[in-house]
Amino acid sequence: MKILLVNNRFKENTEIMAQEVAKKLLSQGCRVEVDNGEALPQLEDVDIIMVLGGDGTILRAARQYARFKVPLLGVNMGTVGFLSHIKVEEIETCLEKFVRGDYTVDERMMLKALVYRDGTLYKELGALNEVVVRTKVPRLLSLPLYIEREKIADYKGDGVIIATPTGTTAYSLSAGGPVLEPEMEALVITPVSSYVLARRPLVVRGDRVLALKNTGNGEEILCADGQINVDLLPGDEIIVQKADYKLRLLNIKKPSFFHHFDERLGRV
Amino acid sequence: MKILLVNNRFKENTEIMAQEVAKKLLSQGCRVEVDNGEALPQLEDVDIIMVLGGDGTILRAARQYARFKVPLLGVNMGTVGFLSHIKVEEIETCLEKFVRGDYTVDERMMLKALVYRDGTLYKELGALNEVVVRTKVPRLLSLPLYIEREKIADYKGDGVIIATPTGTTAYSLSAGGPVLEPEMEALVITPVSSYVLARRPLVVRGDRVLALKNTGNGEEILCADGQINVDLLPGDEIIVQKADYKLRLLNIKKPSFFHHFDERLGRV
Amino acid sequence: MKILLVNNRFKENTEIMAQEVAKKLLSQGCRVEVDNGEALPQLEDVDIIMVLGGDGTILRAARQYARFKVPLLGVNMGTVGFLSHIKVEEIETCLEKFVRGDYTVDERMMLKALVYRDGTLYKELGALNEVVVRTKVPRLLSLPLYIEREKIADYKGDGVIIATPTGTTAYSLSAGGPVLEPEMEALVITPVSSYVLARRPLVVRGDRVLALKNTGNGEEILCADGQINVDLLPGDEIIVQKADYKLRLLNIKKPSFFHHFDERLGRV
Amino acid sequence: MKILLVNNRFKENTEIMAQEVAKKLLSQGCRVEVDNGEALPQLEDVDIIMVLGGDGTILRAARQYARFKVPLLGVNMGTVGFLSHIKVEEIETCLEKFVRGDYTVDERMMLKALVYRDGTLYKELGALNEVVVRTKVPRLLSLPLYIEREKIADYKGDGVIIATPTGTTAYSLSAGGPVLEPEMEALVITPVSSYVLARRPLVVRGDRVLALKNTGNGEEILCADGQINVDLLPGDEIIVQKADYKLRLLNIKKPSFFHHFDERLGRV
Repeated sequence: MKILLVNNRFKENTEIMAQEVAKKLLSQGCRVEVDNGEALPQLEDVDIIMVLGGDGTILRAARQYARFKVPLLGVNMGTVGFLSHIKVEEIETCLEKFVRGDYTVDERMMLKALVYRDGTLYKELGALNEVVVRTKVPRLLSLPLYIEREKIADYKGDGVIIATPTGTTAYSLSAGGPVLEPEMEALVITPVSSYVLARRPLVVRGDRVLALKNTGNGEEILCADGQINVDLLPGDEIIVQKADYKLRLLNIKKPSFFHHFDERLGRV
Repeated sequence: MKILLVNNRFKENTEIMAQEVAKKLLSQGCRVEVDNGEALPQLEDVDIIMVLGGDGTILRAARQYARFKVPLLGVNMGTVGFLSHIKVEEIETCLEKFVRGDYTVDERMMLKALVYRDGTLYKELGALNEVVVRTKVPRLLSLPLYIEREKIADYKGDGVIIATPTGTTAYSLSAGGPVLEPEMEALVITPVSSYVLARRPLVVRGDRVLALKNTGNGEEILCADGQINVDLLPGDEIIVQKADYKLRLLNIKKPSFFHHFDERLGRV
Repeated sequence: MKILLVNNRFKENTEIMAQEVAKKLLSQGCRVEVDNGEALPQLEDVDIIMVLGGDGTILRAARQYARFKVPLLGVNMGTVGFLSHIKVEEIETCLEKFVRGDYTVDERMMLKALVYRDGTLYKELGALNEVVVRTKVPRLLSLPLYIEREKIADYKGDGVIIATPTGTTAYSLSAGGPVLEPEMEALVITPVSSYVLARRPLVVRGDRVLALKNTGNGEEILCADGQINVDLLPGDEIIVQKADYKLRLLNIKKPSFFHHFDERLGRV
Repeated sequence: MKILLVNNRFKENTEIMAQEVAKKLLSQGCRVEVDNGEALPQLEDVDIIMVLGGDGTILRAARQYARFKVPLLGVNMGTVGFLSHIKVEEIETCLEKFVRGDYTVDERMMLKALVYRDGTLYKELGALNEVVVRTKVPRLLSLPLYIEREKIADYKGDGVIIATPTGTTAYSLSAGGPVLEPEMEALVITPVSSYVLARRPLVVRGDRVLALKNTGNGEEILCADGQINVDLLPGDEIIVQKADYKLRLLNIKKPSFFHHFDERLGRV
């Protein structure tokens, strides 16, 4: 079995943990590759991408690796997350179950965001949780929203979040959005501080093509998963739709999404 | 062509309108049957169920006729609704389009609610918009919610709404729920005045089986589409799931759900 | 020192606790009167009204005794509340502090609700937390709201809550209202499941006279503090304004309202 | 009578209008001074500060002139606002009423925000509507809030708005805050996209001293009335309290705050 180990290079303790886990996996007869951040690792023959860290690290890994369709296993370092289900001490048992075929794979929709500037493609971003267009400085921003090229409304306020079902327990929730079962196919459009008081979160089919047009003065930003930022210019058009691939999350302990739902949503 | 005419028997003006429309349809060579509320009308050979009135009248008609799969056409009497798209003066043009096959049929999920009392089935209700369990008198009611027999949480507050996508522009919206595209397959669970401040609307797959258990003192009510009420007793269990049939809505003018979305949602 | 002991007659354990506390107070040389629910107790010379129980018991005591201006001390029986600050085992220390004058008295606004039927006064209610007009069965109720005889708007939905600052951590909060410092002078008008999506909680001066008119069909209820219910008829007018007296809460431990604010608001 | 004319220098049409109004006022025997933005105008003997423009222009004028206690009259240029009550064609009638003493003066609380950097005062800002601390880029920001030096909670999310009653119909409302009668004395603390789902808007007495501490990474901003921005550094402390003066708004037509409340709140 070949495992690609990914850790959060910004957190030293996951670096150290990665070395320890690698040593252990090797001693158990696995082949181990480590994503050291220097070159794109060799993904051929990799059976599992094991991600050490919290939900943030998994978001990065998802954007980088999901397209290769290798199942990803999140190992959390203490904090309970929505994406990393198992603990370090459970790795061995989980690999045994994996070898026996005792697991399922959850498929999660991801997003593709295309920024068009002066009519040509300027940037392409992926996202697992959400894509946000927002002001940098508090100002009333009007963002016309289009669904399948039909203009729905001007979203006036701080900005707009377009979230996947997975992302509905993240930023969209803080902005007043609903929670969706993560394996659904849907896009959630949640306004941030909507000036129009009657504007509510809108859930549309997962195969819809959405577009926002930046009518602001150039102090706006496009942000993917709270991690990748693109400064926008007036007139920029942002197309958001589902990505051509899905994140494949290894589900070995098979907890349902609803298990310990309240505790995980605690947010205190 | 055979048409079943349904009107709101509680509103005299729709009664009169029904007679006029019937006369006109007959003169155009249609066969017309009228739902006079006395006996279940003969549905054999009926091509269209034409409903005169607002969304309320269509809710009644949907619960009564959707199971027979005859397409339903909503004719509004002045007020703009989400369900009745055409005006009386447009009937003739619409029937011409229907004869030419120039139409689509929107399929809308409906709900089935089963009340179990002392372990046996006590009542069965259908709903197009939503099923609600709520207190009659303001009191803190705790309703354990189960999804596929797994207990998710105690919903404490005034009660719980379980809405179809169609119902997300009705009571669920007032209680803070999101709007869903009406042809999606999903159930929306919206708490009413949740005592638990972190409790948010939850959207689950349309094929989920939900259950609520009444832990109240007997001052609770089950309500379907704001029209059918069932008094609940302590210990009653309410199973809510999608109905075995869908409402087939004749869509002749083919406006998208998003067309004039803001105006229709005005709610002033 | 003379103490009036009040307990929750619906909960046997507070009955037993009351007997024990009474015995102890007598042995410490206090005079003790017990509110046995049969006759209005003699309030002459009473220095403290000691209430054993949770916030619910204090709400009852406040409505019954606040008008007599004797300071009230809430003794909780385990659960932490917003109104009962001390535990049973702290009674002795608190009385010592009281004798030494080492305490403050918090004054809390209360409400007076008058129901006019056919132009004459039909009922008068007091409330410490809130007065609610609501439907018994889920139906769209339109309640015209008047402030100082000026009509503000029709509140359409399940109903309307008019809360004191003290009541803003109770039902009003569940319905989406803000939290107010309890010693402020203000009235908070919070709609319940507002059909008008732009309708938001409204905070007005404490000396405002508010009025609601019941335009419903007679399936509406007026509820004070979640404890006193009055069935309403079509056309009933409900005047709500601050009471002529305030609740005087003995504050011996002097915690600020903000102390452990989050924990007390937990609501899980 | 001496009038100081203020217009929005960023909008040419208010510049032209100012010249016309000035000419007319002079012909009516008034003395007129114009705020040309070059030097602080002479305020001695000024009876009225007349502001041409929408609410935005009045916000600027309030921050600049409220301290001088000269009453301010807002003249709107078409759009209906909460602060500018009269139209250009009503100026003459209003001045006549003013001369006759037929008017009242509304007093509105204003805010003072002090930024302390490394323990010393770095900036002082005034605000009529609100003071906001917010991230520039969507990131989870944790802002400890202190009331009278007591720590209340960590506000986690996009940021925090501290609004006056006047400001409760502006940004705070978009972020989910309540509406307050504008002449109340209170501060409203409204979180923006709170990560803590149970965090709700908090209304405290107008004389409270609030403080926020920036624990962010330096991508945060302090914003007054959506018009004045100050970049914050990690560790900056922001003290917010009521200003030593109030805005004196000339109320000649004497509409109540609640008059046409819904229309003015429309926000479509």
